[in-house]
Amino acid sequence: MNYSVIRYILFRVLEFAALFMTLPLLVGLIYGESSAFYFLYVMAGCLAVSLVGRRFKPKNQVFYAREGFVTVSLSWILLSLVGALPFYLSGEFPTYTDALFETISGLTTTGATVLTDVEGLSRCIQFWRCFTHWIGGMGVLVLILAVLPLSGSYNMHLMRAESPGPSVGKLVPKIKNTAMILYGIYLAITLIEITALMFAGLNLYEASTLTFSTVGTGGFGLLNTSIGSYSMTVQTIFIIFMLLCGINFQVFYLLLIKRPKEAFGSEELRYYLGIVLAASLLIAVNVRGFFASGWEAFHHSMFQVASVITTTGFATLDYNVWPEFSRTILFLLTLLGACAGSTGGGFKVSRLIVLLRSVKNEIFSVIHPRSIKKLHMDGHIVEDGVIKSIQVYTMIYVMILLGSFVLISLNEFDFVTNITAVATTFNNVGPGFNMVGPAGNYAAFSVFSKLVLMFDMLAGRLELLPMMVLLSPRTWRR
Amino acid sequence: MNYSVIRYILFRVLEFAALFMTLPLLVGLIYGESSAFYFLYVMAGCLAVSLVGRRFKPKNQVFYAREGFVTVSLSWILLSLVGALPFYLSGEFPTYTDALFETISGLTTTGATVLTDVEGLSRCIQFWRCFTHWIGGMGVLVLILAVLPLSGSYNMHLMRAESPGPSVGKLVPKIKNTAMILYGIYLAITLIEITALMFAGLNLYEASTLTFSTVGTGGFGLLNTSIGSYSMTVQTIFIIFMLLCGINFQVFYLLLIKRPKEAFGSEELRYYLGIVLAASLLIAVNVRGFFASGWEAFHHSMFQVASVITTTGFATLDYNVWPEFSRTILFLLTLLGACAGSTGGGFKVSRLIVLLRSVKNEIFSVIHPRSIKKLHMDGHIVEDGVIKSIQVYTMIYVMILLGSFVLISLNEFDFVTNITAVATTFNNVGPGFNMVGPAGNYAAFSVFSKLVLMFDMLAGRLELLPMMVLLSPRTWRR
Repeated sequence: MNYSVIRYILFRVLEFAALFMTLPLLVGLIYGESSAFYFLYVMAGCLAVSLVGRRFKPKNQVFYAREGFVTVSLSWILLSLVGALPFYLSGEFPTYTDALFETISGLTTTGATVLTDVEGLSRCIQFWRCFTHWIGGMGVLVLILAVLPLSGSYNMHLMRAESPGPSVGKLVPKIKNTAMILYGIYLAITLIEITALMFAGLNLYEASTLTFSTVGTGGFGLLNTSIGSYSMTVQTIFIIFMLLCGINFQVFYLLLIKRPKEAFGSEELRYYLGIVLAASLLIAVNVRGFFASGWEAFHHSMFQVASVITTTGFATLDYNVWPEFSRTILFLLTLLGACAGSTGGGFKVSRLIVLLRSVKNEIFSVIHPRSIKKLHMDGHIVEDGVIKSIQVYTMIYVMILLGSFVLISLNEFDFVTNITAVATTFNNVGPGFNMVGPAGNYAAFSVFSKLVLMFDMLAGRLELLPMMVLLSPRTWRR
Repeated sequence: MNYSVIRYILFRVLEFAALFMTLPLLVGLIYGESSAFYFLYVMAGCLAVSLVGRRFKPKNQVFYAREGFVTVSLSWILLSLVGALPFYLSGEFPTYTDALFETISGLTTTGATVLTDVEGLSRCIQFWRCFTHWIGGMGVLVLILAVLPLSGSYNMHLMRAESPGPSVGKLVPKIKNTAMILYGIYLAITLIEITALMFAGLNLYEASTLTFSTVGTGGFGLLNTSIGSYSMTVQTIFIIFMLLCGINFQVFYLLLIKRPKEAFGSEELRYYLGIVLAASLLIAVNVRGFFASGWEAFHHSMFQVASVITTTGFATLDYNVWPEFSRTILFLLTLLGACAGSTGGGFKVSRLIVLLRSVKNEIFSVIHPRSIKKLHMDGHIVEDGVIKSIQVYTMIYVMILLGSFVLISLNEFDFVTNITAVATTFNNVGPGFNMVGPAGNYAAFSVFSKLVLMFDMLAGRLELLPMMVLLSPRTWRR
C-alpha cells in the first residue's frame, strides 16, 4: 500500500473542504448569521492541518486499483467528517451523528434528512447542506484531478474508483482533461438552471441552493414540503434538469463536439427515457383519481418518476399515500437509478441492459448449445470481463441490501419502512415509504441504524467496491 | 424439437397421474365419501387418453437440454391440470382456477392455500392435497426414470431439468439407478416418519398425510391452525423430519454406503445446520417475552425456522405477529431455502456459498490483480461454468421476483403482502406475512394474480430455466 500518496491526497481533500466552505461562509456573512463563524473555524482548522501536511510529499508513484479504492473511500469519509463540523458546532443539529448523517446524505447526493424542520435552519447551514450535493454530484476527486498537477498511474485508478457506472468514459486521452471537461459541463448546467429558476421567479439564494440539489441529483430542499409549494413552471424546470443530470455526461460532450448521431444513439439513453415515459404514464393512469385533470396527474406522476429514477428525491406531494401499484413502480425505480456517468446513484440503466441481455444469451445457449452469441451494446461487443464484473456487482448489491435490511429491522419499525429506508439510502434517492416517506424523516432511527445507513449511502455512491476494499482485511495485510 | 419423445413422456405422465390417484380413491372408499368417485372418473379419463397414446412411439433418440427442459415443464403443467380435476369436480373448490392453484401449490411443495376452511374438506380430497406434496417432492420425472425402461441421452437431460440445485448429483453411473436409490431413500424416510408419528399418538390417516407434507417439504395440513394443536412431541418429530428433508439426499446415500466422513464433510450441510441454529437462537432471544420459558421460545423459534428454511411452511403459531427482527430473519430464510438435491425449494444454501466465495474472490482480485484464486467447495475446484450459471440463475431469480411483485401490486393489497406472497410462492414455502401470513390464505387474490403466483411456484420448483426455455419464442422456432 502506497501510504504516502494516500496521505498526500487526503491533505489536499482538506484544502478543498476549506475552499468549498467559502461559499456558505459568504452566504452567512451576507445574511449576518452567527453560524457563519463556524465555517471560518473549520476552514482555519483544515488549512492549519494541511499546512503541516505540506511537508509530506509522495515518495513513489506505485499506485494500483487497491490504492485508488482506498484513497477514494477515505477521501469521502474525511470530507464527511469535516463537512459535518459546521452543522454540529452551530448547534442546529442535536448530535454529531445526526450532523454526519446529514453530511454523508448530502455528499452522496442522497437527500435523506434527520431534520423534522428544515425551515428552521439558518441560511448558511441550508446553503452548505445543498452545496454538499453539488460537491458530491460530480465527485471531489474528479475535481482534484481536474485542478491539481497530479500525473502518473493514479489518475486513472482514482477516476475509476469514483465515477459512477460499469466503465469509465474517458472523453479524451488525458484523464486530467476529461475531468476538466466534465466539471465544465457540470458548471454550465448549474448556471443555466440557476438562470432558468430566477426567470421563473425565485431569488438567487433559492435558485442556487435548489439548483445544487437538482444537478447533484441530491434532493435536499428549503421547505418542509419539499417542492410542493413552488409553481408548476418551477416544478417543470426541476423535471427537465433532474432528467438531464440523470444522463451520461458523455452524451453532452458528444453534442458539444457536434457528434449528435453518437450522442442520441446511446442505448442507455433510449432505455432511460423509455422507462421514464412508461413509468410516468402507468402511474398517471393509476393516480388519475387524485387530481382534477389528466394533465395534472401526468405532471405529478412524471415529477416523482424523474425525481426517483434520477435518485434526486424531490417530491411535489406525499406519494406515500398513492395506490400500491404506483408505489411499487416507484420502489423499483428507486432500485434502478439513472444512467452511468451521470450525477445520479442507483444500480444504473446500463447495468440492467447488460444483465437482461446476458440472461437472454444464457437461455439462448441452453436452446442452442453449440452456437455462441456475443453481447452487444451501442453496436460494440461487451467484453466478458465487463459482464462478469456487472454480475458480481449485482451479487454485492443484493447482499448489502439484504444485510442492511436485517440490521435495520432491529429498530422494530415496520417492514416497509425498513426495506425502503435501506433501498433509498443505498441508491442515494432519499425518501422511501411509510416513516421515511416524502413527508417523513430519519430522526427516529437508532445511532446503530444511522451508521448502517451511512455505510449504505457511501457504498452506493462509490459503487460498492471502494468501501468493500476498504473494509477487507486483505487490503491491510502486508 | 423432438416432439415424438415429448409426446411419449407426456402420455406416461397421464398414466402415473392415474396411478397416484389410486391412493386417495382408496381413502375415499374406506371412509365412504362420494368425492372418491371423481378420482375414479379422472383416472379412467387419463387411462383412456394414454391408451390412444400407446400408438405413438418415439421416432428418434435426438434429445438435448432444450427437449429436457420443455418436457419437464410440460409434464408438470399437465400433471397440475389433471390433478386439479378431482378438486374441481368434487365441488369442494369454488373455481377451476382455485383448484389449479391448490394443485400447483401442492405439486411444487409450496403449501399456499386458497382455502379459508381446510377442515371442511372431505378426507380423500385432503389426502390428495397432501399427497401431491409427496409426488412433487422428489419429482415425477425422477420416478418415471426410475420405473420405466427409458434409456438414451434423455435420461440425463430430464434428471438435470427436474432436480433441485446447481449441479446434478449422480450417485451411481446410471441415471436410472440413481433415480431408484433416491426414491428408495425417500420412501424409507416416509415410512419412518409415519411410524414415529403413530407412536406419538396420531392415527394412520393423520400420520400419513402429514408425513407427505413434511417429507415433500410442502406444508399443507389438516387443521386450520396448521400444526399448532399437536403435542410438543409431534411438533418435534416434524422439526426433525423437515430438517432431514432439507438435506441433500446424497448425504443419506453416502451414509448408507458407509462413507460418513464424506457425508458429514459436506460444506453445504454444515452451513445449512449452522444457519438453522443461528437463526433459531436469534429469534428465540427476540421472542422470549411471548413464551413462558426460554426453552419454549426456542422450540417454537426452531420450528418456524426449520419450516421456513426447508420451504415446508408449517406453523405452530401465527409468527406474523412476532417482532420485526424475527420476521425479517424469516423473510430472508424464505428467500434462501435448503440444500441442493433435497426436496426443498428456494435459492439453495450451496448457491449462496458459491456466490459469497465468488464475491470474496472478486474483491481479492481487485486487491491483488495479478494473482488468480480458484473457488473451492468440499475440497474441489468449482468450475467457472458452474459459477457463471449460478450468477445467471441469481439474475433470473431477482428479475422474476421483482417482475411478479409489480404484477401482484395491481391487486392493491399492501406492500408486505405483495412482496412476501411472491417470495414465499416463488421459493415454495407457502405462508408469508400480513394477509398471506400463517393464519391467512390466498383466496382474495384476483385470477390474474393467482396465475402469476402459479407461474412463480412452477418456475421456483423447476429452478427457473425449464419455464424460461418453455416460454422463450426461440425454443419454438425451426
